[in-house]
Amino acid sequence: MIELTLIGIGTGNPQHLTLQAVDALNAQDLILIPNKGAGKDDLAGLRRQICDRAIRGAGPQIIEFDLPIRNEATTDYRRRVDDWHDAIAEIWWQNITANLPDTGGKVGFLVWGDPSLYDSTMRIADRLLTRAAFTISVIPGITSIQALTAGHAIPLNEINGPVVITTGRQLRDHGWPEGADTVVVMLDGTCSFQTLDQDGVQIWWSGFAGMPEEITLSGPLSEVCQTIIDTRAQARADHGWIMDIYLLRR
Amino acid sequence: MIELTLIGIGTGNPQHLTLQAVDALNAQDLILIPNKGAGKDDLAGLRRQICDRAIRGAGPQIIEFDLPIRNEATTDYRRRVDDWHDAIAEIWWQNITANLPDTGGKVGFLVWGDPSLYDSTMRIADRLLTRAAFTISVIPGITSIQALTAGHAIPLNEINGPVVITTGRQLRDHGWPEGADTVVVMLDGTCSFQTLDQDGVQIWWSGFAGMPEEITLSGPLSEVCQTIIDTRAQARADHGWIMDIYLLRR
Ligand SMILES: C[S@@+](CC[C@H](N)C(=O)[O-])C[C@H]1O[C@@H](n2cnc3c(N)ncnc32)[C@H](O)[C@@H]1O
Ligand SMILES: C[S@@+](CC[C@H](N)C(=O)[O-])C[C@H]1O[C@@H](n2cnc3c(N)ncnc32)[C@H](O)[C@@H]1O
Repeated sequence: MIELTLIGIGTGNPQHLTLQAVDALNAQDLILIPNKGAGKDDLAGLRRQICDRAIRGAGPQIIEFDLPIRNEATTDYRRRVDDWHDAIAEIWWQNITANLPDTGGKVGFLVWGDPSLYDSTMRIADRLLTRAAFTISVIPGITSIQALTAGHAIPLNEINGPVVITTGRQLRDHGWPEGADTVVVMLDGTCSFQTLDQDGVQIWWSGFAGMPEEITLSGPLSEVCQTIIDTRAQARADHGWIMDIYLLRR
Repeated sequence: MIELTLIGIGTGNPQHLTLQAVDALNAQDLILIPNKGAGKDDLAGLRRQICDRAIRGAGPQIIEFDLPIRNEATTDYRRRVDDWHDAIAEIWWQNITANLPDTGGKVGFLVWGDPSLYDSTMRIADRLLTRAAFTISVIPGITSIQALTAGHAIPLNEINGPVVITTGRQLRDHGWPEGADTVVVMLDGTCSFQTLDQDGVQIWWSGFAGMPEEITLSGPLSEVCQTIIDTRAQARADHGWIMDIYLLRR
């Protein structure tokens, strides 16, 4: 029996780790950490640092592995992602069988933020279910949505009001979501808020939410739109990478 | 200067506490805990237990206070809630001034889940800003949404898809949110999913998500609808209270 545990680690602040996540890290036999190689973000470094701090005593074996490259020749987006997830699952499988005894054991994965939110780790784990006797459990983590609202000290929702969580691409392709007053936008590489009718819209924007590099900007979208675009471009140039998220309210 | 810190404590599992929340609890001079008095939920008890476990050494002074009663004679819902929040802010103010020196200090509040999500603590805190020199900071916490998806080991969103978070009342009054594939419903005292067209809808339901009493049910809504209604009623009778949340996908 192989027990996979997907451990939410929060969004870059090692203090986001929950007590449950600390215990889960310590309980593993093996921890697999993706190494983005030449990636400028060094999230592998942060994952190593989190393990160093959280793990007491000898602790689990920690293995870093190289992520495969997505095959850009595959034109269909969904297919390209599926193939990539298959390839990652295969690498997991090789590392698990090479490092665990035949009787199985506990394998942990550190997942950015919460494993349920715009993350593929769970879908990759599901691919292993056919290969051996596997169980999958999930340890919840602080999401970038919580890091955003905490950094601005704002409520997510209006009193009893609904909230839409969406992506930059959705906002670009479909505009302001029907019937929504509050919209949280993630995975937006192109400041898609600039495609909206800015009238009466407020924005709360965070880059590197919860991290030492955190930058927060807020105000009427019509007033701060260009400042956010410029600040984001500058921060990205300074650090070599950026992760940002924002809340829109009208 | 009075520094208010709203500390997200997760949704009933003391292990949901983050390392940041543990440090924040220890850093306070005073912690205020609402005592629902005859409340059957004993969330005050859980908050005390969390403080007991997390606080090292003598730690902050912990004061419990009785929540005022909502004035049901006020017919306007919004007005009734506003008045109630005013009354709570007044009690906070009395407890703060009675227990902190004139020079101020650090006051902490333990907030269920994350302080940004369907919680009034931030709105009550804002009422104090006019009374003295206050700062408000927020420590993010694991939400019941994360506890729901972790308990079922499911992703919140479909690949790159949007998610609507809403309340039982909204679902009842407005039906399935326009354009949504995934809907998370909170604050639902009446199993509002039963008012929907059940065709093609899957549900994942959790009572007491993340807690020792956790109950999870899932399946096609048409098949599990009545089971959930019955299970919820039984659990509520057994424990004297219940908190539940669910995800719908079509
Ligand atoms: C692949 S998703 C992963 C989300 C993660 N599972 C979570 O719970 O937040 C990556 C997106 O999350 C957001 N994000 C994650 N961490 C962030 C941070 N520290 N600051 C700002 N945005 C962040 C950004 O919108 C980014 O494009
Ligand atoms: C006033 S809201 C507070 C939400 C909280 N701030 C959070 O972050 O989850 C209360 C609602 O949250 C949901 N909830 C909170 N804790 C829960 C739990 N342990 N299990 C199931 N639902 C929960 C229920 O829908 C409940 O009606």
